[in-house]
Amino acid sequence: MNPVPAPMQSCIEECLRCYQSCLGMAMRHCLEQGGPHLEPTHFRLMMACAEICRASAHLMLLGSPEHGRTCADCAVLCRQCAESCDALDGMQDCAAACRRCAQACERMAAG
Amino acid sequence: MNPVPAPMQSCIEECLRCYQSCLGMAMRHCLEQGGPHLEPTHFRLMMACAEICRASAHLMLLGSPEHGRTCADCAVLCRQCAESCDALDGMQDCAAACRRCAQACERMAAG
Amino acid sequence: MNPVPAPMQSCIEECLRCYQSCLGMAMRHCLEQGGPHLEPTHFRLMMACAEICRASAHLMLLGSPEHGRTCADCAVLCRQCAESCDALDGMQDCAAACRRCAQACERMAAG
Amino acid sequence: MNPVPAPMQSCIEECLRCYQSCLGMAMRHCLEQGGPHLEPTHFRLMMACAEICRASAHLMLLGSPEHGRTCADCAVLCRQCAESCDALDGMQDCAAACRRCAQACERMAAG
Repeated sequence: MNPVPAPMQSCIEECLRCYQSCLGMAMRHCLEQGGPHLEPTHFRLMMACAEICRASAHLMLLGSPEHGRTCADCAVLCRQCAESCDALDGMQDCAAACRRCAQACERMAAG
Repeated sequence: MNPVPAPMQSCIEECLRCYQSCLGMAMRHCLEQGGPHLEPTHFRLMMACAEICRASAHLMLLGSPEHGRTCADCAVLCRQCAESCDALDGMQDCAAACRRCAQACERMAAG
Repeated sequence: MNPVPAPMQSCIEECLRCYQSCLGMAMRHCLEQGGPHLEPTHFRLMMACAEICRASAHLMLLGSPEHGRTCADCAVLCRQCAESCDALDGMQDCAAACRRCAQACERMAAG
Repeated sequence: MNPVPAPMQSCIEECLRCYQSCLGMAMRHCLEQGGPHLEPTHFRLMMACAEICRASAHLMLLGSPEHGRTCADCAVLCRQCAESCDALDGMQDCAAACRRCAQACERMAAG
């Protein structure tokens, strides 16, 4: 038995995948590569995206009726993070995870 | 040396105080008291408020320029949570922590 | 490209699945069912298990060499939570998620 | 009314101060300074220390009887992080926050 509605469940999963991708890539790929990968604007965006993904998933799991707010923020950060990843080597998968999460969160935020 | 600007530092502290109050009171006072304290709408609001306070503090610490979004959400949840606490016994301190956090977050969100 | 080693990746996924199950079931099933589902010992265990799963996944994603410590704690909490779920209606899936996570974390903690 | 016992309350506060110091310094001071401040071993330790501080505070707030485990881990990471900070410019306050947190967590872990 799964008490979370199916579209919300799939949004939670995209959020947690994007969280994994952003945090894992920032702390492994970017931190090791250095150069533009460690440029503060990019690196902070990766970490902020990871945290808002984590928090959005959390509010959905809690069953909070206010999850639309965090999903809307999450979509904004994910779109920015995807663009920032586009400009760097080896970050295509992370950009793709951000775009899938943004799409799922935009649907959730639209209610 | 503290690299976080003073008004942001004080907002981070209000967020972490409100996080502590909401999570601690939910899991100790409300869970033990039962009855209206465990009414799902109230309890979920306490937990959602704790999480958004935690995430807002996190984005400010990261130095993310998007912290205004999470601060704005945080203020909304804190105002709702304060009202929900007003209706219950023994939750005045929690309501006060929510209101102080809401005020600090509203100032941050306004830039 | 995925810079996380495969056995660690699968442990991260079990941790995040168990986090979802414990938090989602606590805040939806247990909170609505009440009675023994809201007994403080059980409910706190669900929430503590959710948090340690979240933190263990985080340390693995960070690439911290100390992730074995949080994985060991996570395994202990997951075993306790599985037993607590066994005693209650409708919690078999959550107990199973806890046991899969415990196993994965025990392997990680053993190095 | 504060339902958290006083010694635990002070440990929660040290954990949240150390979390703020490690995350804030990593993402502002270290990320901007570069060089040895961004050496992966140091930077990962800062981020892992921040997360275990956050999780230890959380388990204490939840009232989990297993908080001694996360406090013990937290003390280990804080001691390592303090030593890593000692070797770098401008990190004395962070090292001090780590040592105060380690001490508080060691007392908590000892029961």
